[in-house]
Amino acid sequence: MRRPPLKAKVHITLKSGVLDPQGKAVEHALGGLGFKDITDVRQGKYIELTLSSKDKKKAQAEVEKMCKALLANTVIENYTVELAE
Amino acid sequence: MRRPPLKAKVHITLKSGVLDPQGKAVEHALGGLGFKDITDVRQGKYIELTLSSKDKKKAQAEVEKMCKALLANTVIENYTVELAE
Repeated sequence: MRRPPLKAKVHITLKSGVLDPQGKAVEHALGGLGFKDITDVRQGKYIELTLSSKDKKKAQAEVEKMCKALLANTVIENYTVELAE
Repeated sequence: MRRPPLKAKVHITLKSGVLDPQGKAVEHALGGLGFKDITDVRQGKYIELTLSSKDKKKAQAEVEKMCKALLANTVIENYTVELAE
């Protein structure tokens, strides 16, 4: 049986302490719409990669390399990589 | 003991079939950097909301309302809401 392709779920979030103007804008807009019980909004990115490699361990290392090289700005952003089939 | 504030994790992704130029750009850029075993990239949004309400069920409904009203464009996007403490 053929195995389904590996999927990597990558979350990229701003480090705590880094100003998040996009999140603040969303918070403000939600307040304006009448949603009053929000105390904070942080906006990040969510990237789903489909990979052709079959080796989960290798894929994990590969995707972490991608994060460092392109997807995340590691000065101000954190990233997490989750692999699933 | 005071309970920690509720956090809502919202994922907003394009519906399958909707063109994702941002994802395509990332895919192309990763290819250019030498990452060859990627077959697809989809980019979405990840929003973390901190809520002052204590009722998990009510909060879930409230955040889903926010998604429909502002956060997601339900014509082309799907959303999922996950509540955690």
